[in-house]
Amino acid sequence: MTDRLRGVVPPVLTPFTADGQIDLPSLERLVARLVDGGVDGIFALGSSSETAFLDDTRRAAALEAVTSFVDGRVPVLAGVIDTQVERVLAHARVAERVGAAGIVATAPFYAVTGPAEVEASFRALAEGTSLPVWAYDIPVCTHYKLPPDLLVRLGVEGVLTGVKDSSGDDVSFRRLAMMNRAAGEPLTLLTGHEVVVDGAYLAGAHGSVPGLGNVDPAGYVRMDRAARAGDWETVRAEQDRLAALFEIVFVPSDRVGPAAGIGAFKTALHHLGVLDTNVMAPPLVPLGADHAGRIAELCAAAGLE
Amino acid sequence: MTDRLRGVVPPVLTPFTADGQIDLPSLERLVARLVDGGVDGIFALGSSSETAFLDDTRRAAALEAVTSFVDGRVPVLAGVIDTQVERVLAHARVAERVGAAGIVATAPFYAVTGPAEVEASFRALAEGTSLPVWAYDIPVCTHYKLPPDLLVRLGVEGVLTGVKDSSGDDVSFRRLAMMNRAAGEPLTLLTGHEVVVDGAYLAGAHGSVPGLGNVDPAGYVRMDRAARAGDWETVRAEQDRLAALFEIVFVPSDRVGPAAGIGAFKTALHHLGVLDTNVMAPPLVPLGADHAGRIAELCAAAGLE
Amino acid sequence: MTDRLRGVVPPVLTPFTADGQIDLPSLERLVARLVDGGVDGIFALGSSSETAFLDDTRRAAALEAVTSFVDGRVPVLAGVIDTQVERVLAHARVAERVGAAGIVATAPFYAVTGPAEVEASFRALAEGTSLPVWAYDIPVCTHYKLPPDLLVRLGVEGVLTGVKDSSGDDVSFRRLAMMNRAAGEPLTLLTGHEVVVDGAYLAGAHGSVPGLGNVDPAGYVRMDRAARAGDWETVRAEQDRLAALFEIVFVPSDRVGPAAGIGAFKTALHHLGVLDTNVMAPPLVPLGADHAGRIAELCAAAGLE
Amino acid sequence: MTDRLRGVVPPVLTPFTADGQIDLPSLERLVARLVDGGVDGIFALGSSSETAFLDDTRRAAALEAVTSFVDGRVPVLAGVIDTQVERVLAHARVAERVGAAGIVATAPFYAVTGPAEVEASFRALAEGTSLPVWAYDIPVCTHYKLPPDLLVRLGVEGVLTGVKDSSGDDVSFRRLAMMNRAAGEPLTLLTGHEVVVDGAYLAGAHGSVPGLGNVDPAGYVRMDRAARAGDWETVRAEQDRLAALFEIVFVPSDRVGPAAGIGAFKTALHHLGVLDTNVMAPPLVPLGADHAGRIAELCAAAGLE
Repeated sequence: MTDRLRGVVPPVLTPFTADGQIDLPSLERLVARLVDGGVDGIFALGSSSETAFLDDTRRAAALEAVTSFVDGRVPVLAGVIDTQVERVLAHARVAERVGAAGIVATAPFYAVTGPAEVEASFRALAEGTSLPVWAYDIPVCTHYKLPPDLLVRLGVEGVLTGVKDSSGDDVSFRRLAMMNRAAGEPLTLLTGHEVVVDGAYLAGAHGSVPGLGNVDPAGYVRMDRAARAGDWETVRAEQDRLAALFEIVFVPSDRVGPAAGIGAFKTALHHLGVLDTNVMAPPLVPLGADHAGRIAELCAAAGLE
Repeated sequence: MTDRLRGVVPPVLTPFTADGQIDLPSLERLVARLVDGGVDGIFALGSSSETAFLDDTRRAAALEAVTSFVDGRVPVLAGVIDTQVERVLAHARVAERVGAAGIVATAPFYAVTGPAEVEASFRALAEGTSLPVWAYDIPVCTHYKLPPDLLVRLGVEGVLTGVKDSSGDDVSFRRLAMMNRAAGEPLTLLTGHEVVVDGAYLAGAHGSVPGLGNVDPAGYVRMDRAARAGDWETVRAEQDRLAALFEIVFVPSDRVGPAAGIGAFKTALHHLGVLDTNVMAPPLVPLGADHAGRIAELCAAAGLE
Repeated sequence: MTDRLRGVVPPVLTPFTADGQIDLPSLERLVARLVDGGVDGIFALGSSSETAFLDDTRRAAALEAVTSFVDGRVPVLAGVIDTQVERVLAHARVAERVGAAGIVATAPFYAVTGPAEVEASFRALAEGTSLPVWAYDIPVCTHYKLPPDLLVRLGVEGVLTGVKDSSGDDVSFRRLAMMNRAAGEPLTLLTGHEVVVDGAYLAGAHGSVPGLGNVDPAGYVRMDRAARAGDWETVRAEQDRLAALFEIVFVPSDRVGPAAGIGAFKTALHHLGVLDTNVMAPPLVPLGADHAGRIAELCAAAGLE
Repeated sequence: MTDRLRGVVPPVLTPFTADGQIDLPSLERLVARLVDGGVDGIFALGSSSETAFLDDTRRAAALEAVTSFVDGRVPVLAGVIDTQVERVLAHARVAERVGAAGIVATAPFYAVTGPAEVEASFRALAEGTSLPVWAYDIPVCTHYKLPPDLLVRLGVEGVLTGVKDSSGDDVSFRRLAMMNRAAGEPLTLLTGHEVVVDGAYLAGAHGSVPGLGNVDPAGYVRMDRAARAGDWETVRAEQDRLAALFEIVFVPSDRVGPAAGIGAFKTALHHLGVLDTNVMAPPLVPLGADHAGRIAELCAAAGLE
């Protein structure tokens, strides 16, 4: 596993200006915060990047900007979220051009499909790109749970390089880690669940893709290094602190989905001076002052200035 | 309602050649079958067109071919299924160019959203196109049920022109029809559920968008004319015959979603000599000979040669 | 079908006194309203009777009271809602004793089961009682949709007599009606969906079990007689009036499940002078004056004094 | 926390004879295996006891037998799974009589309810019994997820003593543990997810209720003692071994729910000589020889003789 990407790979947010353009200075500060925080990689164009609300032009612009700001200091994984293979491969072309270290692809979505179609899609992606392919398991968005045995089988065959697990199914994740070990560990396993990364490390995760890592990258890095060192009390203490910070996403209880979660991350980063605004991509509406106060308190309680 | 599109508006399939290209001669024969069957309009690039498995180039090509083959004899509605507004509007540009009579748009999908985001999306679409906007209520794909009161409110304001209801929620459809009447009938209501169109007519539907109408357009037209004439026994008898024919979609019991339903429609039309193949867009795999025999029997039992 | 129970079979509510006892005088008035309204049968201890909130003693008392008040004028079906077979059969013993015309049983619930367990359960019930067994298809409560082919097969074998369909799945109901006809019509099919009974009649329903029939039994009877006479315009007009009345269940938009629906029925019947209170079984809380006013308006608009 | 029940509290199975009676000698051996394995308590009449398939007589008989065999060596928690409060309290009467240490109650089920009804139900239970009340969070059966803030609030007020979490929602469990600590730890938190107990310990679980603990109680006890000692590598190694053993429940891939899981536990214990049969309560059908062989292999691989 020595050469592999592992550790903390936050899904970088996409900052916007007040008039809805990608806010490059804010993005540059955010990338700097992540790299300075010691992250092992950056995941661009994930769900946390509001990718589902961006057209192809803005997706490419965001990915180019991230890779430019990262400037080779850590690997960049590129999300290629789309309904079907040719569209996904068009995003992969951009990822190849900007030097991404891999692409992260979901099951097909919108249309109802089964395991045969999902397997065929991943195979077509792997054939269509020179980049390593990561499977993005996010049934809350795709409404399909990737089966662990399929993932490991595709890992053994070299179709898949890793899995970004945002399934919320810790029993399935344990089985995936077990099956992966039994197969010689072909897959790198990253968890996307910010508040149970410690348990995922015990289960066999190689790292995390924490949306909250935009707000506190150094905390996730400390947890990762402690896990590598077997210092589980530190792992737990850091996770508990971060889980308390994660309560920011429950502050806007009148919102659902990214309007709440990404809204809270952006509001925190605006409060911390990293982002110039907490604007989101339409039709998402940014959080208001009523939420910002409580979010600032939770940041302070977690030790963020 | 006199000038409005109403009646039978089948969602035309997208035929493919054995090597995966759009099969234009087959599509021309299919369009001819629909128009000759007396349909009142054609819905292109709906879910039944395998739109979710087509990239933008093939979507545009399919829409152009359909409108070309229709040649103004009936209005063509254009599906603009996509994750977010700018992408939807890019499809709308194509629809405008080819002379479509309206666009049919879903709620945003992939990302979890709520009523505020859905309303804002429809408003942005209406502002961004000169074409009438139809709401496509298809929660099995979008995982969001469009609320009837929202739809009627947007109808009253002129944001929406009609609704294509594939929700499977007949209670909600009844409420939608009631609210629509109470508001002066701003919306045209079309049901997408092939086997309960008769009940939808009683509830207040102005027409149907039956996938099965690809296989038997004349049957749906006869049912529609009988409903307009208040001849409910004919309506029922025709619907019962069509419901028996619809059993073709349950023949491939080992498939889910479009791999079963559209697979069966294409296999029936191949059997009937309309399509040269029953090929589907990858990763969908066409039905085999094991299924074709039973589908041919059901076609014969329904009186299709 | 001549001897069979068919037509309108409302699921009679269970009125309570202010201190939570079964309110026998109110129940007697309610039963009289149903019988005087011309109903063809009464379904006691259905979900609308708040059966899930009653212990066995009160269930038996409610059933005895209903059959006593009905006094043989129409058949009484007895709900036997419970988790497993012996419990269901204990309820069947009471039903046999009071002279019920049949029992209405769900799939097992709480535990996750599949078709094999569901089929075995219905077989065990039929062997354990001399009464006809009706299948109660109510996946919103049992979280299992009864497959139409299983139902018809059990009908052919004499295990099941009929189906009370509260599935909300009109496509499945159409298939059930088709398969039932093809099999010689072994099953009597009643729909539980108050606002789409007209479409269910077209599909092949033999009658309805409308909760709203507690509030307006005569309206459902008029619709049924019109359907038998083939007078579909009257069917539709009556259904539209009843669907408008059904809006009472959406008035308490801050409630879910029976707290809204049964709460509204009881509040309407209290307003109409049939029930002395609108009290529900704990932990359900009755609707308040804020809702009662709007419910009274909707009753008046539907022509109920 | 010193006096509290914590640690390993397996949900004891209910063995049956070939003719469907509770198999008391097998149950005595199973209880002995648990107690000898060092468990800290026993949970009787949980979902793993097939409680949903038992009538009240057999439930009481099973509980009496378990408490008799345990004979005071460890506390016994009694499941009181039922649809509504009076029924639950009838089970509580039995639990009080046999000296149970607490009752474990779910949200109401079958009927759809909301947080107000759930809260009122738990309050009514606590008022109706002298025994400590544990909340049983098992949405796969009740279809209602208990909100962590409600649980902690009821803990602070003394309504609830603890939570048995079988929700499969590790993010919610982390939040529950955090909120519980912030409130002074009024609740004892036990996880029911056999393969991620290690992560639950890190999150703040006080113990586990592992169905698989019937098969390997000593393994869960070793994991618990290691967790208390902060020896996380041992925790993880033991959990990995037990997770590999848990694969027995996936052997019967043609079954769902308890027919698979409990079927596998019983088949393993029959293979190990603890149970005389692997019979389940009807309508559940025991696993066959085709499954037993693979289950025996997995037992051997986990070091069980």
